[in-house]
Amino acid sequence: MSVTAPLGFRAAGVAAGIKQGGARDLALVVNDGPSRAAAGVFTGNRVKAAPVLWSQQVLAGGRVRAVVLNSGGANACTGPAGFQDTHATAEAVAEALGDSAAEIAVCSTGLIGERLPMDALLGGVTTAAGELSRDGGLAAADAIRTTDTVSKIAFRRGSGGYMVGGMAKGAGMLAPGLATMLCVITTDADVPAERLDAVLREATRLTFDRLDTDGCMSTNDTVLLLSSGAAGVTPDEAEFQRLVTEVCADLARQLLVDAEGATKAIAVEVVGAASEADALTVGRAVARSNLLKCAIHGEDPNWGRVLSAVGTTDAAFEPDRLNVAVNGVWVCRAGAAGDDRSKVDLRPRDVTITVDLSAGTHAATIHTTDLTADYVHENSAYSS
Amino acid sequence: MSVTAPLGFRAAGVAAGIKQGGARDLALVVNDGPSRAAAGVFTGNRVKAAPVLWSQQVLAGGRVRAVVLNSGGANACTGPAGFQDTHATAEAVAEALGDSAAEIAVCSTGLIGERLPMDALLGGVTTAAGELSRDGGLAAADAIRTTDTVSKIAFRRGSGGYMVGGMAKGAGMLAPGLATMLCVITTDADVPAERLDAVLREATRLTFDRLDTDGCMSTNDTVLLLSSGAAGVTPDEAEFQRLVTEVCADLARQLLVDAEGATKAIAVEVVGAASEADALTVGRAVARSNLLKCAIHGEDPNWGRVLSAVGTTDAAFEPDRLNVAVNGVWVCRAGAAGDDRSKVDLRPRDVTITVDLSAGTHAATIHTTDLTADYVHENSAYSS
Repeated sequence: MSVTAPLGFRAAGVAAGIKQGGARDLALVVNDGPSRAAAGVFTGNRVKAAPVLWSQQVLAGGRVRAVVLNSGGANACTGPAGFQDTHATAEAVAEALGDSAAEIAVCSTGLIGERLPMDALLGGVTTAAGELSRDGGLAAADAIRTTDTVSKIAFRRGSGGYMVGGMAKGAGMLAPGLATMLCVITTDADVPAERLDAVLREATRLTFDRLDTDGCMSTNDTVLLLSSGAAGVTPDEAEFQRLVTEVCADLARQLLVDAEGATKAIAVEVVGAASEADALTVGRAVARSNLLKCAIHGEDPNWGRVLSAVGTTDAAFEPDRLNVAVNGVWVCRAGAAGDDRSKVDLRPRDVTITVDLSAGTHAATIHTTDLTADYVHENSAYSS
Repeated sequence: MSVTAPLGFRAAGVAAGIKQGGARDLALVVNDGPSRAAAGVFTGNRVKAAPVLWSQQVLAGGRVRAVVLNSGGANACTGPAGFQDTHATAEAVAEALGDSAAEIAVCSTGLIGERLPMDALLGGVTTAAGELSRDGGLAAADAIRTTDTVSKIAFRRGSGGYMVGGMAKGAGMLAPGLATMLCVITTDADVPAERLDAVLREATRLTFDRLDTDGCMSTNDTVLLLSSGAAGVTPDEAEFQRLVTEVCADLARQLLVDAEGATKAIAVEVVGAASEADALTVGRAVARSNLLKCAIHGEDPNWGRVLSAVGTTDAAFEPDRLNVAVNGVWVCRAGAAGDDRSKVDLRPRDVTITVDLSAGTHAATIHTTDLTADYVHENSAYSS
């Protein structure tokens, strides 16, 4: 299903020889219309990969005919030559489709700082264009994996029968303002580009932007939302927003669970905040505490490390009014020891840390993982 | 030597029974004058331990007769009862010395969120007061260790024969705005409190504040500078500043080398910055990249992870003018691959990462460590 669940889309995933070992490494997603309306959200990193710089220009026009994605190389920090490689990739897709490169988005993921093997990549474009099909969504989702252990796909059906489908990749470097991830979401509902943009920004704000597995922000993050209009349905605005947000949340959850080396999925739930911004600030600070992430890995409900992270923020709170629960047990009350910490069961994979700032009525949740020796091993050995 | 290198100071370090296993866990440093001028710098964390809240009040008066320090418990997040414990500790020291509690500073380090065993602690105060000596500096430095594998001491001699001596502890949670550390620096030069304050702030700004091993800021950080005036020397201002800064730098280096689980001491040297603030911002962002710290652990000169960290900051720079050297090899030039990365030798313990922002003439260096499986193990198993 994936990106080909909605009508009007074809996809392919092929082994172009960019990665060593013969795994799939190039995906193509084509929108056959009748609409080509599209929106995109990109990394907040000021060091942006060539495909991000290119695709931002494409999306400024609000129309996308196709997206070509490769794993095996990020084409980031590759200078003007790297940008020319992205341009050549878009031209090759355009030629294969008999269309304009100005409506071809490009996404890349993998090692930073190295040029892509363009002969292999361009050969892969030709192969992929020949294999495009309505069944190609799963192969495409497979082809964009890097250290992902599984493909990530999701879809939802709306009233009147329209669909929202998506695929994503990303397992490390998951951080604020979008995880290191590529994500393509498609719909056969008929939605103009401006509306897609607003819907996508709201959906990513509430989902991918609240993932923070290791505090590291990528140079390549891209989330695209494409509408073919092929279902002939103009969706209810609220329902469409909800479905796109659900697809993003579903994919975000899959990214979190597959994060490099993680053994715990930790929800840092901040309540009682004076503002949503305060709740997010505190949630991120707690989610980024290496000491806390180690403690949760060791199944130690170390609420002192929660408080010491909260204390680094400028959110509104009084230290002696902070409460912290770990998996529902209020181990810290009024800034000091609360209920018996031996009551906390940290054996399940899912862990909820609730921080009550006692400063208002706003709330937000940041999702992170534990810090493990496997994370260290994977990121010591793998140049990415 | 340590804190008793200067004249006018006595110290002791005893096993009070706060820690399990019979190791030394209580230190006392006494200033016999004639001066009692003192200054202090404390954690920037808004969640402050009881001894920090107490000692800030003491230091507001600019005079310190004695400092009592314990390991085995941080007395942080312990509520009003914890503050009373600190007060009682200061009163016990004051009584033993026949002096006022208002001039007794208190420092604690260890597990957050648990009350101190006050019977053991107060017994230790009595014992320590009986063992005070001019030779007690080493025992005091030993008594404040937590996960430190070695004691940290330093001293320097000034013109006219005055001394500056110091001791410190801290091995994890080393972060911005002071590492998790306790540090006492003494001098027998005669320097008024206001001048001590200015000297200490400048020294910590350039040393401890530029250590960032794991991005975590403690609730208990305290650095004190005490003057006995016993040498009868009014020091040259510039020389005194230099010596205090050198003692702090020496201790900071010892903390870095002993950081939990670290195998590399990494200097992130930012040059070509538009301002010193920009250089520090970039240095901290690079020093906090878990991905980069893993790469250095794996002896991989992964400059792409440097650039992706630089890109998260608001410092003045253009991505295509960034240069990065690892141990002197410019592996990134103009934002893209530079010299052959295979020329980088990352086997030595000391690693220098140079980031040239090409945006000005300012520079600053942040010191950090690699991220290792041992760090994870130590912090998964140890509640602190």
